[in-house]
Amino acid sequence: FSSQLNIGSRNRGSGDSVESFGSWGFEDSRFVLNTLPNGSNVVIMKGGRYSISGKPLTKLVGFIEKELNMKIDPNSESFQGVDFSLPDGKLTAEDTVRILTAIDDDTSRLSTVAEDRARHGTGHTQDDIYSLRSGSFRTRLPDAVVWPRSVSEVQALASLATTYNWCIIPFGGGTNVTHSTHCPSSTVDPRLMVSVDMKLMKNVLWVNEEDGLAHVEAGITGRDLIERMRRLGFTIGHEPDSYEFSTLGGWIATKASGMKQNKYGNIEDIVKEVTVVSAKGIMSHKHKANKVSYGRSSAGIEPKALMLGSEGCLGVITSAVIKIWPLAEEISHESVLFPSFDAGLRFVKDLSNQRTLKPASCRLLDNEQFRLGQAMTENSPKMGFYLGNLSEKTVACATITFEGSAAELRFQKKIICELSAAHGGILAGSRVSKSGYDLTFAIAYLRDFAMNYNILGFETFVPWSKLRTVVERTKRTILSEHKSRALPGLPFVCSRITQIYDEGACVYFYFCMAVNFNGALDPRDVFGEIEASARREILNNGGSLSHHHGIGKLRSSFVPEIYSDGYLDSINAVKTALDPVNVFGARNGVFAGKPC
Amino acid sequence: FSSQLNIGSRNRGSGDSVESFGSWGFEDSRFVLNTLPNGSNVVIMKGGRYSISGKPLTKLVGFIEKELNMKIDPNSESFQGVDFSLPDGKLTAEDTVRILTAIDDDTSRLSTVAEDRARHGTGHTQDDIYSLRSGSFRTRLPDAVVWPRSVSEVQALASLATTYNWCIIPFGGGTNVTHSTHCPSSTVDPRLMVSVDMKLMKNVLWVNEEDGLAHVEAGITGRDLIERMRRLGFTIGHEPDSYEFSTLGGWIATKASGMKQNKYGNIEDIVKEVTVVSAKGIMSHKHKANKVSYGRSSAGIEPKALMLGSEGCLGVITSAVIKIWPLAEEISHESVLFPSFDAGLRFVKDLSNQRTLKPASCRLLDNEQFRLGQAMTENSPKMGFYLGNLSEKTVACATITFEGSAAELRFQKKIICELSAAHGGILAGSRVSKSGYDLTFAIAYLRDFAMNYNILGFETFVPWSKLRTVVERTKRTILSEHKSRALPGLPFVCSRITQIYDEGACVYFYFCMAVNFNGALDPRDVFGEIEASARREILNNGGSLSHHHGIGKLRSSFVPEIYSDGYLDSINAVKTALDPVNVFGARNGVFAGKPC
Ligand SMILES: Cc1cc2nc3c(=O)[nH]c(=O)nc-3n(C[C@H](O)[C@H](O)[C@H](O)COP(=O)(O)OP(=O)(O)OC[C@H]3O[C@@H](n4cnc5c(N)ncnc54)[C@H](O)[C@@H]3O)c2cc1C
Ligand SMILES: Cc1cc2nc3c(=O)[nH]c(=O)nc-3n(C[C@H](O)[C@H](O)[C@H](O)COP(=O)(O)OP(=O)(O)OC[C@H]3O[C@@H](n4cnc5c(N)ncnc54)[C@H](O)[C@@H]3O)c2cc1C
Repeated sequence: FSSQLNIGSRNRGSGDSVESFGSWGFEDSRFVLNTLPNGSNVVIMKGGRYSISGKPLTKLVGFIEKELNMKIDPNSESFQGVDFSLPDGKLTAEDTVRILTAIDDDTSRLSTVAEDRARHGTGHTQDDIYSLRSGSFRTRLPDAVVWPRSVSEVQALASLATTYNWCIIPFGGGTNVTHSTHCPSSTVDPRLMVSVDMKLMKNVLWVNEEDGLAHVEAGITGRDLIERMRRLGFTIGHEPDSYEFSTLGGWIATKASGMKQNKYGNIEDIVKEVTVVSAKGIMSHKHKANKVSYGRSSAGIEPKALMLGSEGCLGVITSAVIKIWPLAEEISHESVLFPSFDAGLRFVKDLSNQRTLKPASCRLLDNEQFRLGQAMTENSPKMGFYLGNLSEKTVACATITFEGSAAELRFQKKIICELSAAHGGILAGSRVSKSGYDLTFAIAYLRDFAMNYNILGFETFVPWSKLRTVVERTKRTILSEHKSRALPGLPFVCSRITQIYDEGACVYFYFCMAVNFNGALDPRDVFGEIEASARREILNNGGSLSHHHGIGKLRSSFVPEIYSDGYLDSINAVKTALDPVNVFGARNGVFAGKPC
Repeated sequence: FSSQLNIGSRNRGSGDSVESFGSWGFEDSRFVLNTLPNGSNVVIMKGGRYSISGKPLTKLVGFIEKELNMKIDPNSESFQGVDFSLPDGKLTAEDTVRILTAIDDDTSRLSTVAEDRARHGTGHTQDDIYSLRSGSFRTRLPDAVVWPRSVSEVQALASLATTYNWCIIPFGGGTNVTHSTHCPSSTVDPRLMVSVDMKLMKNVLWVNEEDGLAHVEAGITGRDLIERMRRLGFTIGHEPDSYEFSTLGGWIATKASGMKQNKYGNIEDIVKEVTVVSAKGIMSHKHKANKVSYGRSSAGIEPKALMLGSEGCLGVITSAVIKIWPLAEEISHESVLFPSFDAGLRFVKDLSNQRTLKPASCRLLDNEQFRLGQAMTENSPKMGFYLGNLSEKTVACATITFEGSAAELRFQKKIICELSAAHGGILAGSRVSKSGYDLTFAIAYLRDFAMNYNILGFETFVPWSKLRTVVERTKRTILSEHKSRALPGLPFVCSRITQIYDEGACVYFYFCMAVNFNGALDPRDVFGEIEASARREILNNGGSLSHHHGIGKLRSSFVPEIYSDGYLDSINAVKTALDPVNVFGARNGVFAGKPC
């Protein structure tokens, strides 16, 4: 019977936008390493999707080799794919029939294929990618994947889950980096695990241009949503780096943050109302007038307050009313080079005092990340720029995006000029800024470029008063963790400030290092341990558990360190109240419950 | 025994800031009516607190008489106070001892005096003021009032309540206009009702100037908090019209909104973290570093998400970390006159498109409210202004407050000039703006000036696309409700836009009319019915149940019209989970529960 259920790559898109399996991004876009006749190594991104695509990157291999103090072996770089098989899941013939009844008997929307189960039981951590590539899974995978098309189908699935004691784990783009779509182990939860993939629920239900609102189904990807709004002359302004694949529902469940939050806000500002299939029925607002949302209101606790950060554990978000903005009159980019990261920090802190007058986005790259970005530009003299008397060894770079009316931009640019000058900065133009931006998108591809060289990224919010300390100590912790393990070569650690707020900033760390693949050492353990040490250092010094990735399972052991016992008891009680038989049993973050 | 507990007016402040009893505001500031030798009536606000104080307002009585089509009787205006007595409350001698144990045996912090019980079982609706003045209460009053001084005292009270089955109703400034501090009737809840007045918990626990944060106890009044921050060179930017008396805890519990939200945000933006004494213990964040707050975070549902809009039903907020801003470099005022309210509406809608470039506050007064404001200015020729070819009968007025750097203000003023011109507006300078602002503060005093002339105010959020309809139909509804009741004279109805958002605006309606005091007709009924009709009309046409006042008991019958059943079941379940024996049984808003 289950052989009928074979949809495999359906979930990966179609046409020119098929998603890769076992690595980040589109299948048409990945880095390849070519050895030129003269023996030098050139890296090229395939396809034509990004501005970087097709351009020979002659400096990259040299940069990596120097930083990691190792040779790159051109023969070990590419991922061939494993033909992994999985032990059968728990889906019985009866369960299959039941699920099919809920989805209009559409067998093309139910799968037990290994590839689907594997992809839906993972996300996009280094750990996940390693598992998908090696075919060796250390956590349980869902027994079945279902693609509902409507609220009533989701309801039908939830009610089957209640009746037959299944566990549902909502799935959006699967771009989380917190293990939030991992299944609890069979010891913790022996029930049937059903991954409910929301990506077929991607309709725009209505648009109200006058009020600047759109009601959209939650499975829509950022790419799709942005494009559909663009065609109407609008933007949502929300651009997490993962927007090509992540979904509206995932953003809400994880409390995502986009690069342009200065102007457009974070997901909590963008989303006005949510509709949710919960274990207690549909949670939503009622409106008597058409295409209406209440906007700011004081009407008790709203459904949205319960769903932001719910991480799949309180129900399935099926749609949301979001804010849309007319496309900006002008968009432009600028970059500023500073003598040091410290000088750059003083600049962004001063910029934060400008409050609402800040440009849409301002990121600050530390020296290492800036040099990485430069190593990923074409080696043409045109791409050179004026460093003045700044040292390449200490320079830090702010990349800025302006969006707004011509007058607004003029005003903001003036502020940037003045503040840059005040901190010894040199304006370096839009090209450098663009390359910093490209780097953001390329870095995820880069991670998967050479599987021997692992890149891990993690973020934190830090108040201004603790920022320098947190950045310094976190880097130091990573270096010493690396050292104490006698790992090969050197680690590469870099950071950037990605979001600035009145009271502090989000810092994003990357670290990259080589890991020996010998039987004794699973690279997933090494990375997990180092990340946990870094996180502890961050918390000890006044940084947060998460600025935007969420907690999932990866960071849930830290939860007791950030909330009082009374709060944890309370939130556990809330979970039980809203989902008495634990239909949404993903056990993420504050809903991890007590370990069994 | 209970005769020891006699603190009476302690709750009303001291020195020059004693709060009135049975009317809004400070005891030193109230309107009085003087008949001049020539027979004309002059209104004067006593004291020297406001810019309007001490100035003879010669036009006001004439204005009111004309609009209401009635004569004002100078002999019926002032409130003499009733020496009301109350039936004994339920506090037993044992309970008294128990409470005293929790508060360090400080008898000065427990009261059963009629005045205290009455004040703590009311708020500031017209209904409440009528009750306090007439001494005739239609809802149950608390049996005792307690003033805790610390988190542990609040905890001790909550645990007594759990043990001995009492109901606690948190009390801040008692400025609510939703009956949220009324006690449920004895039929609904026969338990001992204890009002926990938070006003002695008013310490600033720490200030972190670098991050722009302050940790403040929740009982502090806005007046006190603003003054304390001002002395350090900071502002909280939060200015609800009630700020002189309302408290930080009350703002959070009701989800308050201030006039300058364009710049400083609403209470949800201002408050970063809360600490709460709940029935399940203390709900709070933990931090390893000193004077730190996490700022934006993605760490599941935070305590704040549960407390915003909790209306006293989930616990006592004991403190909050709030955002503070350096005092603005410049503050200035402007006003713009428009040929009609419609033209003014188009102006504010266009201004809303400026998003973050909007001035700190922009309010739009309709013709009636503008004329009322003018009637409250001194009759000196200097106060005249240039109406141009606008008609006094149709003119509407936008009053604007700018706060920020000199450059920012220049920029914003330019926008205001351009947009005003585009909609036929005439800049009328800061004096008119100031008088609009004064009106806001005076109107609450005005309401209580003549008890025969009742003023009711209520607010709603309306999306731009429904705004005209909602304003027109709400006014029409009030007029027709008045007519159908054959009440004396004419009603005076006016409105203003108080807050503007990207997707809509908050509209505030006032209506004033005379009510006969004859035994058959309780004015509280008349007002209640008319307000309910207006609210129904608002909801039918796309307005919201509340933009900032909250729901309380006054609007709770509408709750099933704005949320789905599934959501109401959910939120009821959340309440039961967080407060299993219903210690915080105020039964407001979404926590009203099913009527017994
Ligand atoms: C390269 C890369 C860049 C990234 N950049 C950013 C960034 O800039 N900003 C940022 O905030 N994050 C970023 N992330 C993290 C990730 O993209 C976000 O957490 C995103 O919000 C996840 O959305 P998703 O649709 O992929 O959710 P999934 O990964 O599918 O699921 C995440 C969680 O949400 C739940 N969920 C998903 N859909 C629903 C639904 N409809 N109803 C209820 N629960 C649901 C799941 O159960 C799970 O707990 C990045 C990740 C990668 C790999
Ligand atoms: C003249 C006037 C002008 C007003 N202007 C505005 C305005 O501009 N904007 C606005 O938003 N509102 C306004 N209001 C309404 C009112 O001031 C607000 O609702 C205010 O937030 C109430 O605060 P409070 O401290 O007076 O609370 P209270 O009236 O004492 O209580 C209100 C609710 O909050 C609960 N509560 C109070 N303190 C706590 C605590 N520490 N912990 C838990 N629960 C608590 C109470 O139980 C009750 O449910 C106005 C009212 C008046 C009379």
